[in-house]
Amino acid sequence: MDNIRKILDIKLLAQSFDIASTAVYPLANAQKIAQLYANLENGISVLSDLKTKKSYLYYGSMAERLGLECKQQEINSIWEDELLNLIHREDRLKKYNLELRFFKHLKSIGLTQRTDYQMISKLRIRTIEGKDMLLKHRLLYLSSSADGNIRLALCLYNIVYEHLGFDAPEGIIINTRTGDIVEDGDDQTQRKLSSREKEIILLIKQGKRTKEIANKLLLSIHTINRHRQNIFKKLEVNNAIEACRIAEVAGLI
Amino acid sequence: MDNIRKILDIKLLAQSFDIASTAVYPLANAQKIAQLYANLENGISVLSDLKTKKSYLYYGSMAERLGLECKQQEINSIWEDELLNLIHREDRLKKYNLELRFFKHLKSIGLTQRTDYQMISKLRIRTIEGKDMLLKHRLLYLSSSADGNIRLALCLYNIVYEHLGFDAPEGIIINTRTGDIVEDGDDQTQRKLSSREKEIILLIKQGKRTKEIANKLLLSIHTINRHRQNIFKKLEVNNAIEACRIAEVAGLI
Repeated sequence: MDNIRKILDIKLLAQSFDIASTAVYPLANAQKIAQLYANLENGISVLSDLKTKKSYLYYGSMAERLGLECKQQEINSIWEDELLNLIHREDRLKKYNLELRFFKHLKSIGLTQRTDYQMISKLRIRTIEGKDMLLKHRLLYLSSSADGNIRLALCLYNIVYEHLGFDAPEGIIINTRTGDIVEDGDDQTQRKLSSREKEIILLIKQGKRTKEIANKLLLSIHTINRHRQNIFKKLEVNNAIEACRIAEVAGLI
Repeated sequence: MDNIRKILDIKLLAQSFDIASTAVYPLANAQKIAQLYANLENGISVLSDLKTKKSYLYYGSMAERLGLECKQQEINSIWEDELLNLIHREDRLKKYNLELRFFKHLKSIGLTQRTDYQMISKLRIRTIEGKDMLLKHRLLYLSSSADGNIRLALCLYNIVYEHLGFDAPEGIIINTRTGDIVEDGDDQTQRKLSSREKEIILLIKQGKRTKEIANKLLLSIHTINRHRQNIFKKLEVNNAIEACRIAEVAGLI
C-alpha cells in the first residue's frame, strides 16, 4: 500500500466520531445521492463512511467499459480497490496526495463552508480492452460532525470525452460557489523536518521522555518542547504517537 | 424572440402528452434531483415540464455572482428568461441550435437509450459586476412518454473555472455510457428547401390545395405530393401547418 494512503488512513480514520452528526446529508440520503449520480450520469459513485469504515459502490453503465459489472455493493473499506487498482499508479498517487491536501484544507475552514468545495482530478484508467481511458474524478464531503470531523465522502467518476473542448484538470481544489481555485501550498516542503527535529522524533519513537531527550542532546527541556510543538505543527497532528506514524509512513524518518 | 427558439417551441411543445408517462423520474422526483444539483454543486438548475409549460428554478449559491437571488421559483414558461437574458446573444443562439439538434437526435433513437445522452455547451454570461463569466450548461431529458414524447428537461449551469485544466466544449452531444460523441449532421443544409419546394410551400401557405398547385405549376398531382412529402421530411414535420410555421420561422421562405 502506498505511503500516502497510509497517511490518509491515519488522518481520515483517526477522527473522533463520538459527537452526533448534524449533517445536511445523513447516510441514507447520501446513498440516494450517490445512486442518483451513477444512474443519471452513467458514472461510478462511491460513498465512503469514515466512521463505520464502509463504502457503498454504485456502478453506472459506464462501468461496463472497465469490465466492472453494473451493480450496487457494500464493502468493508473506505477504499474501492476493485476500481482504484485499475487506475494508473502515478495518477493514483497524485489523487491520494490531492485528497490529503483537500482534507487539510477542509479542516482549516469553517463547517458551513465545507460543502462549497470539490476536488477534481484526471485519472488514467485501464479499460476492459487493456487501453488507457481518461476519467474525471470528483470528491465532495457530504457531512461533518458538529466538532469538525468529516464523515461522508462522495467520489464521482465520469468519462472525459475525447474531444478538443473537453478537459479535466490534473488535480485541483475548487470553490463551486465563488469559482475560486485553492492554490497548492506545497505541503511536502512544509512538512519537511529539520535534522534536529528528525533526531528528536526518533528519540520520541524510542519511548524517551522530554527530560531524557534534553539530557541526551545537551539542550533545555524548554527547547525540546518547542521542537516537539514544531514537529506536531509540521505534521499536523496532536500527539506523539500520531507524529511518529505520520513521519514514518511519509518517509520523513 | 429568436427564430430558432420559435422552432424549438413548435417542436417541443407540439408533442402529444396524452399518453401517460412511464417515467423513471416523475415530476416530484425530478424536482428533487434539480434541487439536489443546485445545493450540492452550488449551480443553477432548471427543470422544465413541456406538458404543463412550467419551469422549476433552483438557484444554488453561484447565482449570487449573477445578481440572482438564491431562491426556488416556479414560472409559467419553459424558458428561464431571467437567466437566459444574461447569456451572450451568440452563445444563446448556439445553445438553442444545439438543443434543437439534441431534441432531434433523441427523437431518432430508442426510448431506453435516451437517458444515456447529455448535451453540453459553454456560455458567456454577464455577472453582477458587468463582466463576462463562463458557464458550463448541461441538458438532460429525464422523462419520455411511452409513445416517444419528451417531457421533462433538466438544465444544469455551473461555473467553468479559470484554470488551464478546465474547459467545456462550445457545444456537443455526448453518450455518457460509451463516451461517444454525436457528430453534427449539419441540419441547416439538410433542411434547405429547393426553389421548387419553396414555391410549393408558399402556395400551401396561401391555402391552395394539391390539385390547384399542380394546375398552377403545370405539374402532376403525384409530383406535388412527392414534393410535399420531401418538404415534410426536410422540415421534420407531419403536416402542412407545422411545415409552414417551421419554414417561416427558420427563414426558409
